[in-house]
Amino acid sequence: MSDHSGSIVLGANQYGKAENRLVRIHRETDRHELRDVTVSTALRGDFTAAHLAGDQSDVLPTDTQKNTCYAFAKSHGLGEIEDYALALARHFVDDVAPVRGARIAVEEYGWERVPVDGAGHDHTWVRRGSEVRTTVVTVDGDGAEVVSGLRDLVLLKSTGSEFAGFLVDEYTTLAPTHDRIMSTSLVATWTYTGTDVDWDGTWADVRRILLERFATVHSLALQQTLWEMGRGVLEAHPSIASISLSAPNRHHFVVDLAPFGLENRNEVFYAADRPYGLIEATVTRG
Amino acid sequence: MSDHSGSIVLGANQYGKAENRLVRIHRETDRHELRDVTVSTALRGDFTAAHLAGDQSDVLPTDTQKNTCYAFAKSHGLGEIEDYALALARHFVDDVAPVRGARIAVEEYGWERVPVDGAGHDHTWVRRGSEVRTTVVTVDGDGAEVVSGLRDLVLLKSTGSEFAGFLVDEYTTLAPTHDRIMSTSLVATWTYTGTDVDWDGTWADVRRILLERFATVHSLALQQTLWEMGRGVLEAHPSIASISLSAPNRHHFVVDLAPFGLENRNEVFYAADRPYGLIEATVTRG
Amino acid sequence: MSDHSGSIVLGANQYGKAENRLVRIHRETDRHELRDVTVSTALRGDFTAAHLAGDQSDVLPTDTQKNTCYAFAKSHGLGEIEDYALALARHFVDDVAPVRGARIAVEEYGWERVPVDGAGHDHTWVRRGSEVRTTVVTVDGDGAEVVSGLRDLVLLKSTGSEFAGFLVDEYTTLAPTHDRIMSTSLVATWTYTGTDVDWDGTWADVRRILLERFATVHSLALQQTLWEMGRGVLEAHPSIASISLSAPNRHHFVVDLAPFGLENRNEVFYAADRPYGLIEATVTRG
Amino acid sequence: MSDHSGSIVLGANQYGKAENRLVRIHRETDRHELRDVTVSTALRGDFTAAHLAGDQSDVLPTDTQKNTCYAFAKSHGLGEIEDYALALARHFVDDVAPVRGARIAVEEYGWERVPVDGAGHDHTWVRRGSEVRTTVVTVDGDGAEVVSGLRDLVLLKSTGSEFAGFLVDEYTTLAPTHDRIMSTSLVATWTYTGTDVDWDGTWADVRRILLERFATVHSLALQQTLWEMGRGVLEAHPSIASISLSAPNRHHFVVDLAPFGLENRNEVFYAADRPYGLIEATVTRG
Repeated sequence: MSDHSGSIVLGANQYGKAENRLVRIHRETDRHELRDVTVSTALRGDFTAAHLAGDQSDVLPTDTQKNTCYAFAKSHGLGEIEDYALALARHFVDDVAPVRGARIAVEEYGWERVPVDGAGHDHTWVRRGSEVRTTVVTVDGDGAEVVSGLRDLVLLKSTGSEFAGFLVDEYTTLAPTHDRIMSTSLVATWTYTGTDVDWDGTWADVRRILLERFATVHSLALQQTLWEMGRGVLEAHPSIASISLSAPNRHHFVVDLAPFGLENRNEVFYAADRPYGLIEATVTRG
Repeated sequence: MSDHSGSIVLGANQYGKAENRLVRIHRETDRHELRDVTVSTALRGDFTAAHLAGDQSDVLPTDTQKNTCYAFAKSHGLGEIEDYALALARHFVDDVAPVRGARIAVEEYGWERVPVDGAGHDHTWVRRGSEVRTTVVTVDGDGAEVVSGLRDLVLLKSTGSEFAGFLVDEYTTLAPTHDRIMSTSLVATWTYTGTDVDWDGTWADVRRILLERFATVHSLALQQTLWEMGRGVLEAHPSIASISLSAPNRHHFVVDLAPFGLENRNEVFYAADRPYGLIEATVTRG
Repeated sequence: MSDHSGSIVLGANQYGKAENRLVRIHRETDRHELRDVTVSTALRGDFTAAHLAGDQSDVLPTDTQKNTCYAFAKSHGLGEIEDYALALARHFVDDVAPVRGARIAVEEYGWERVPVDGAGHDHTWVRRGSEVRTTVVTVDGDGAEVVSGLRDLVLLKSTGSEFAGFLVDEYTTLAPTHDRIMSTSLVATWTYTGTDVDWDGTWADVRRILLERFATVHSLALQQTLWEMGRGVLEAHPSIASISLSAPNRHHFVVDLAPFGLENRNEVFYAADRPYGLIEATVTRG
Repeated sequence: MSDHSGSIVLGANQYGKAENRLVRIHRETDRHELRDVTVSTALRGDFTAAHLAGDQSDVLPTDTQKNTCYAFAKSHGLGEIEDYALALARHFVDDVAPVRGARIAVEEYGWERVPVDGAGHDHTWVRRGSEVRTTVVTVDGDGAEVVSGLRDLVLLKSTGSEFAGFLVDEYTTLAPTHDRIMSTSLVATWTYTGTDVDWDGTWADVRRILLERFATVHSLALQQTLWEMGRGVLEAHPSIASISLSAPNRHHFVVDLAPFGLENRNEVFYAADRPYGLIEATVTRG
């Protein structure tokens, strides 16, 4: 355990409690409100003694971090996930002496009220879908950074997408096309310039822009669509410094029905799982 | 390979192509329609020679079954999944001589049009959620049976649910409760009495009833809620002979916040993954 | 809640606690033993009052069933999973008055000792793989039935497999082949004739036979291979009444490298995810 | 499409084909060899025109990248995955003009020969487990970097692990322990100092060291165990510059059996899924 390791040293490290599943009901009135989230914490600082000597005196247990997540959902409420994550991160950095930095990641799952006789029920919900809202908040000596986003936003357009004029080498067999299905399961993350933001409103509007641009841009390539989506977001939201988009190209292949005497004019597709194209781009301010 | 196996014999068997991923675009007008399904086929008959002697002369390749799924999506269209599955099953039984029975399973994934300027876009969609519509059609010498349903319908009510007065034995530690979260990820399958049915309309109305009953029944146990859901469906739909419900009880545990000086009045919950209760019941006609 | 439902009645039903994750360490000596299982319980009986009237007085909570699983792992030990499941099932049927039948399913995950200086360590293990050993024990008025098995046994042979001479119809495009990769992820379940069985020894020998037959049978079709595997098991084990095999045909497609001036003699394959053939067969005693 | 976007600019971007599933059989003799991998490519360079103007003339299709993966498995063979990835990456950078950098990620799945009569079969294998060998090779103007590793190495020790003497704050409820189960599903990645390395031999020896250290270090915390594992690797392998370890702490909770009159001396555990501790550390050279 003594330091006979020569020039071998501890590098970057962090630790925390991952994937705390938390449901918060606000029930001040008979019309309840629901927030359903998964919270992950990670703390940074000088934890050399814990690694080199097994000395835990500067280590706040991950079990305590879990407790803090649940306690804060009561004491601070759980409204916009960015505010909740900021409160948690600042607490760890400000109130727990050895902690120099904290990273709080929150995923939120959407629910909608069950319709009964045309109105949403007071205390019953149905999960809206697989789409997830995300935020990652990092607080350290340099202040706070908020990176919000979404994942598993699955989109498809059945025309209005081309792929042609590409580079050809000796391994190229693909035929160009001027009409194809374009489909993706979008992951988007955007970095805010500060923390004085209408979190819920901005998130909803970014999602609206991403959807609209995907629909209305006549696409010459997924790269171009991503650029237009990102540009649309930055043009509309000065509070956003940059946006990163990661888009698998979920291939839909036109099935050859000619052997069966049938013509397939982009009507019947085989939706492939793997491999998939993966296009990643950041749009930022110059 | 000869039958020197004494009294060892071939029992039940079937074979087919599972999980054909198929997207069908109907594009007769500029306003496209989309159906996104996964199709699985299984054929039955006397395939003894294939097993005992490796003789494939009565075996229609699973690759051919796949081709047939894609071809039928063009030649017969792909509208209501029950009709599509019936057409496929009848084809295999009627047109492929050695086949005595066919089982076609279809899963359908929901999409909704992307809203642009307040209207749904003509050819761009976003996945609606994780919920899946299902049908299993079996055709054999006795005719056709259609069992439709849904899965991954995730529901939660934040009050209006009790669990008390239960049997206690020496391994019982659970405290009774008169107010808890009740949540499930419902799987429902119902058997139709025939095939002359408004498939889409019935499916949507069954789903509506399941949601409404889950919301409005004051629940003394998940068993009771399932019974009321099933009864509601059978009362409303004479075309349905029986309905089976499988409901994991997704436990939400009230977090003890007393050590932190906080009172938790059913506001902050830990949502557990495993284990979960699993309640299964069939409601049928006497 | 009263029975104004006319002829609508409760059909088959059961309830229990699913997926109890349980690790049992036997540490009577410094050389520990490890069993890692997932246990699911389901109880059957007359639970009409619970469904129709919300009356829980005959309902043993699923939480109690969970407690019983953990308690029995201590009081009865956890050795062969069939014995553990039999003890649990008999307890529920014999000791809990309203219970008429119990179904206990156990999955077991394999571990092997970490090698240190050529010997297996006393109390440190590494997971052996994704393969899972299973048993389902059902006890009711008719006695006990034990169905053991395995799943996720992934096999591949790179030659010694054909598929030719099959039925051809108007949707057939597949070319026959006399040399292909055959690969599957096997699920096998076998029913014992009684309960006086060397569970561990039989399980290991069945697995050995399945592997050997898969390797040594020159396959004219997956159906034939399954038959030979099943026959081999029944010939060797009189304690087994029947065996059911479910085998996805994990397709490996020869990649066409001719456009790049390369010949591909069954050397480079694309391993597809979906669709896959699915071959299912039971071998039994006549 | 023209650049009326003001100061909005394209940032970091890359594109490629992800998760190409590839099986390579070397069959020069009757004793075949098998490599089973998933390959992902990503290309970097100046692709501004593709994003801003939809001009694909500098874009090598992801379909071509896929073809290249399969062709190279034939033309270059597929032996050690690091060599294969280096060949692919260098090809893209050297031979495809607009490409400035390439990142090739390979996952390899282990198989072992099926034992028949005590010997490994010539052309039949069984999957060894869920553990995966990995490499990520990046080639750009600065040369080549190779980062190899493993993931899903699941370990458990049933004693020899403590957690005590930790920091306590107002949210701490955890009791210290001097004997617990420690279990993890390890992800390790290590960076080589160059490319002239015995890849297979080094990988196997790193895995051996990780296992042995996990077994033999009496652990005062997972942090300490990770440090000792990393230190052991760096001490033994001068060809490795640094190693990063990511270790979920898979909690095993001692079940309270006292209500049932049973004493549980670290014998019966509930293995929890979520949340889990997550400990991450890099060990490097000073």
